[in-house]
Amino acid sequence: MTQQDDCVFGANVKPIASVLPGETIEIEAYDCFGDIVRPQRDWKEVLESGEEIFENPVTGPIYVEGAEPGDALAVDIVEIQVAERGVTALVPGFGLLEGWFSQVPPVSKFSEIKDGEVSFPTSRGKSIIMPVRLMIGTIGVAPATETIATVTPSKHGGNLDTLEVTTGNRLYLPVSVKGALFALGDVHAAQGCGEVCGTGVEVPALVKVKFNLLKGKKIEWPRIESPDEIMTVCSARPLEDATRLAVRELIRWLVADYELEEYDAYMLLSVAGDVGISQIVDPAYTVVAKIRKQLLSQLR
Amino acid sequence: MTQQDDCVFGANVKPIASVLPGETIEIEAYDCFGDIVRPQRDWKEVLESGEEIFENPVTGPIYVEGAEPGDALAVDIVEIQVAERGVTALVPGFGLLEGWFSQVPPVSKFSEIKDGEVSFPTSRGKSIIMPVRLMIGTIGVAPATETIATVTPSKHGGNLDTLEVTTGNRLYLPVSVKGALFALGDVHAAQGCGEVCGTGVEVPALVKVKFNLLKGKKIEWPRIESPDEIMTVCSARPLEDATRLAVRELIRWLVADYELEEYDAYMLLSVAGDVGISQIVDPAYTVVAKIRKQLLSQLR
Amino acid sequence: MTQQDDCVFGANVKPIASVLPGETIEIEAYDCFGDIVRPQRDWKEVLESGEEIFENPVTGPIYVEGAEPGDALAVDIVEIQVAERGVTALVPGFGLLEGWFSQVPPVSKFSEIKDGEVSFPTSRGKSIIMPVRLMIGTIGVAPATETIATVTPSKHGGNLDTLEVTTGNRLYLPVSVKGALFALGDVHAAQGCGEVCGTGVEVPALVKVKFNLLKGKKIEWPRIESPDEIMTVCSARPLEDATRLAVRELIRWLVADYELEEYDAYMLLSVAGDVGISQIVDPAYTVVAKIRKQLLSQLR
Amino acid sequence: MTQQDDCVFGANVKPIASVLPGETIEIEAYDCFGDIVRPQRDWKEVLESGEEIFENPVTGPIYVEGAEPGDALAVDIVEIQVAERGVTALVPGFGLLEGWFSQVPPVSKFSEIKDGEVSFPTSRGKSIIMPVRLMIGTIGVAPATETIATVTPSKHGGNLDTLEVTTGNRLYLPVSVKGALFALGDVHAAQGCGEVCGTGVEVPALVKVKFNLLKGKKIEWPRIESPDEIMTVCSARPLEDATRLAVRELIRWLVADYELEEYDAYMLLSVAGDVGISQIVDPAYTVVAKIRKQLLSQLR
Repeated sequence: MTQQDDCVFGANVKPIASVLPGETIEIEAYDCFGDIVRPQRDWKEVLESGEEIFENPVTGPIYVEGAEPGDALAVDIVEIQVAERGVTALVPGFGLLEGWFSQVPPVSKFSEIKDGEVSFPTSRGKSIIMPVRLMIGTIGVAPATETIATVTPSKHGGNLDTLEVTTGNRLYLPVSVKGALFALGDVHAAQGCGEVCGTGVEVPALVKVKFNLLKGKKIEWPRIESPDEIMTVCSARPLEDATRLAVRELIRWLVADYELEEYDAYMLLSVAGDVGISQIVDPAYTVVAKIRKQLLSQLR
Repeated sequence: MTQQDDCVFGANVKPIASVLPGETIEIEAYDCFGDIVRPQRDWKEVLESGEEIFENPVTGPIYVEGAEPGDALAVDIVEIQVAERGVTALVPGFGLLEGWFSQVPPVSKFSEIKDGEVSFPTSRGKSIIMPVRLMIGTIGVAPATETIATVTPSKHGGNLDTLEVTTGNRLYLPVSVKGALFALGDVHAAQGCGEVCGTGVEVPALVKVKFNLLKGKKIEWPRIESPDEIMTVCSARPLEDATRLAVRELIRWLVADYELEEYDAYMLLSVAGDVGISQIVDPAYTVVAKIRKQLLSQLR
Repeated sequence: MTQQDDCVFGANVKPIASVLPGETIEIEAYDCFGDIVRPQRDWKEVLESGEEIFENPVTGPIYVEGAEPGDALAVDIVEIQVAERGVTALVPGFGLLEGWFSQVPPVSKFSEIKDGEVSFPTSRGKSIIMPVRLMIGTIGVAPATETIATVTPSKHGGNLDTLEVTTGNRLYLPVSVKGALFALGDVHAAQGCGEVCGTGVEVPALVKVKFNLLKGKKIEWPRIESPDEIMTVCSARPLEDATRLAVRELIRWLVADYELEEYDAYMLLSVAGDVGISQIVDPAYTVVAKIRKQLLSQLR
Repeated sequence: MTQQDDCVFGANVKPIASVLPGETIEIEAYDCFGDIVRPQRDWKEVLESGEEIFENPVTGPIYVEGAEPGDALAVDIVEIQVAERGVTALVPGFGLLEGWFSQVPPVSKFSEIKDGEVSFPTSRGKSIIMPVRLMIGTIGVAPATETIATVTPSKHGGNLDTLEVTTGNRLYLPVSVKGALFALGDVHAAQGCGEVCGTGVEVPALVKVKFNLLKGKKIEWPRIESPDEIMTVCSARPLEDATRLAVRELIRWLVADYELEEYDAYMLLSVAGDVGISQIVDPAYTVVAKIRKQLLSQLR
């Protein structure tokens, strides 16, 4: 399966494949730098080479048969396999603390990934071993009329950089054009909530996803369902607005599906729901609002 | 032990007691409304009565013998006991979604608290049972020259509304005046990250804390240590600035105590640290940045 | 000259005309609602009719012969003629104070425009007469790879809603695609700085502009030159970032063209430059930073 | 008249003088650095000396006889006389672009002030001559219960850094404690809207003000009246909130004094009012919303 090189989500991008609802496929994805940052030629050299850098390439788009505006596409993340080496980089002009502390030259670090663990090198010569946190950074469908760069998250999905887009979970995306035009890329072997320097452990990957189509299920923003929780995923600037949107979407969900009054849902989230920062480095910031299904099941 | 009624942290407030470093004491605290919202006379009636409402009263201040500006006060949260009933209220003009959705009359809900569980009533006549998440909402010391309302969080602590200020954890506060002038209140039996409607399950409480004094340990902002993690706790508006401050403080901590380079600490937090929203409703918003001790121990 | 109905700036939109550098043309433009809100059938009726509303239509795009990525397009605003009636509307979900005060039904007001004055009706039965402040709300070129809705301002121009885009001034836009693909619309007969409720006195118009091409003049963001001042025009959220960008762009301009040191330009703007809010209602907020040419001429 | 050295506005600060309503007095004020940055020993040396720096000293407080909580204090700015030399400084950790561009050493610049003009030196060896823009940077009264540093603007006034606090205008401040406890300082010989680097042309001054007391005139935030305009002055972070507050206050003023409907006032400000950034560098940002009296007089 080939990869897209214009790095946008849009109605005009020509599909590279099509699937039927219910089908499971494997998608190969570059890392967020198009696999060109390597130990033999690191980040600084790449930047200095003047070579064109793919900015957050995605694989796709994939045409989902039968998908129409007003439907929801439910994507089950079945499996994420990653390469044995990932890269973390400080990108000039990018990252939460850009300008907040002493300047550093462009830095790239290469982590080894093996047996479910990431070995992250430090400047002190020792590596830190941590469990993998596999996740898909960029995943989405085409917006209705705009064409949006793959580095930007919004209602169509995109560069969500959300830890919960991971194996075993289901992501819901609002379909805005015929065929949905799904694409993904930018897989991380590890990332903290916030992704504060702008990158995680960026890694080429093979992702297995299953497509499901919910006809006539209109949603405004991406949603996630894990075995234990339901979540809304909203992106905006400032961070306050992303948070407001995510909480409001979750309240609407609770009102629609669990018959709570609006103020009731609001108060329930205040005492038992959680809002969390997915990333605070992309052109819009992403916040997740969530609540445990076990609590909601008591309302049935 | 009596309670303070001017609802400020400040050098001019007269101490109600004094303790020695190493001492453990019990502190009785009103809930955030001064215990005046009760099932017999709920929030709406209180608001309409014109009666003066204590705004987030704290118990204290407590003079810590030997504490001087430039020291850190380390407070171990030994035990939190709460009453059997807590209140959650929608406060007009307060809360993340103020104005974002249909207006509701002032609402208060009373939860029963028993055997480690909170029973939260819903408008559908059913209650939702959830485990308690005991925490101290407001805790701090006097600032150097300003006098700050107890509803506001800042460098001196204050209305942090941070879930991690809980049993088994240690909170570090920067001492700015002689005797530190410690106070606490505003305990919650349950609260979600964000505290989105402005209140948790607000509850009168009896709190046992142990005071420790770190002479000459200069810190800028509150810090928390749990058995598993170290954390910085910063408050500001906008939310982006609170996040930047928390991450920068944690980087400084890693540089000072673990000898990492600044950029190294930054990248480590990006792949393995987490930033989280404590609350997004108070006059300044509070963010926690954290990393697991197990990862850092590999550097020793 | 026909009008565009997909309401985007993008490389894929087919030009409706072409011009040579140096040429002056007249462009006819709908108002921001596509001229469909009228006294006979006001805003409320339009919203309820379910009829499709053009969202901020523009006229164009116009292909500028010879324009290539890396050039700047300099557009002289030669003349703005407006209709005799304009509309101001409260758009649900839009406006600075959305949700901050009591809800009102959708409202539209029709102002008479005559002899350089606007007569704005009030609920008290009296009209307020004010001088016109003619300006072009939306004006821009195609971005390089993205397709951007006409309601959004950014580096390519777009919905700037900036008072200084007016007769006698020159607007510089960065060319990102062959032919530039210029378009404009959304003219206002009057608007305050901020455009706080989301609309000005929106009016159909006939605009005369002259196109000039500055080959190889690379700029990042739109700029304006009036007889007295030079200005940068940047759009972002939050408003702080829009302000930072506009000031930084102006500093860069002063450093490049007036040979000031960076810190020097920064301090000069602090004592003698001005930053101002153009609008704080669109998907990104727009800020102008400016300084008087008379001050700069002393450096020659 | 002596100057205050604890640099706060608060109920506990002892008055240095008292005045009767209707009285005009002269107040001598240090510059914002307490006059210690001088050509013979500039900013860098001062910072390195370790000497304590007065942070934005004010002269006062002045007890206004008869002033009580719930009144408004109306202060007419009768005259501002300034010294012949002013200082502009880059303060580390301060200023809009802190960290956004290349680091510079602490810089101070000394402007000559003569005959209504400021001569501002540049790094190119030439000075730029500009007209003075005299204004009082910090001016306010004591808050009710908090004690607030003089660098912070809020409801009580404080470090407003607002150009319109100038000769010929009247400033209204809400009285919160007996005697009001008025103080001022931090005069600027010139400043741009935004005060982007954090300082204007900071200058010692002699200020003549007349005090007027409006019994029972309750206002929430400072207001300004010039010969031509009425204005509200609100301070908050983020900048969006400062803007919302200023516009809302002005709408409330129009509703109360000009009998407009709320939506009417909102729309009027959108087409004929202006919002402007006073400063975007202090602990809270200050925004002014204004409208011309000539327009309002048509409603009488």
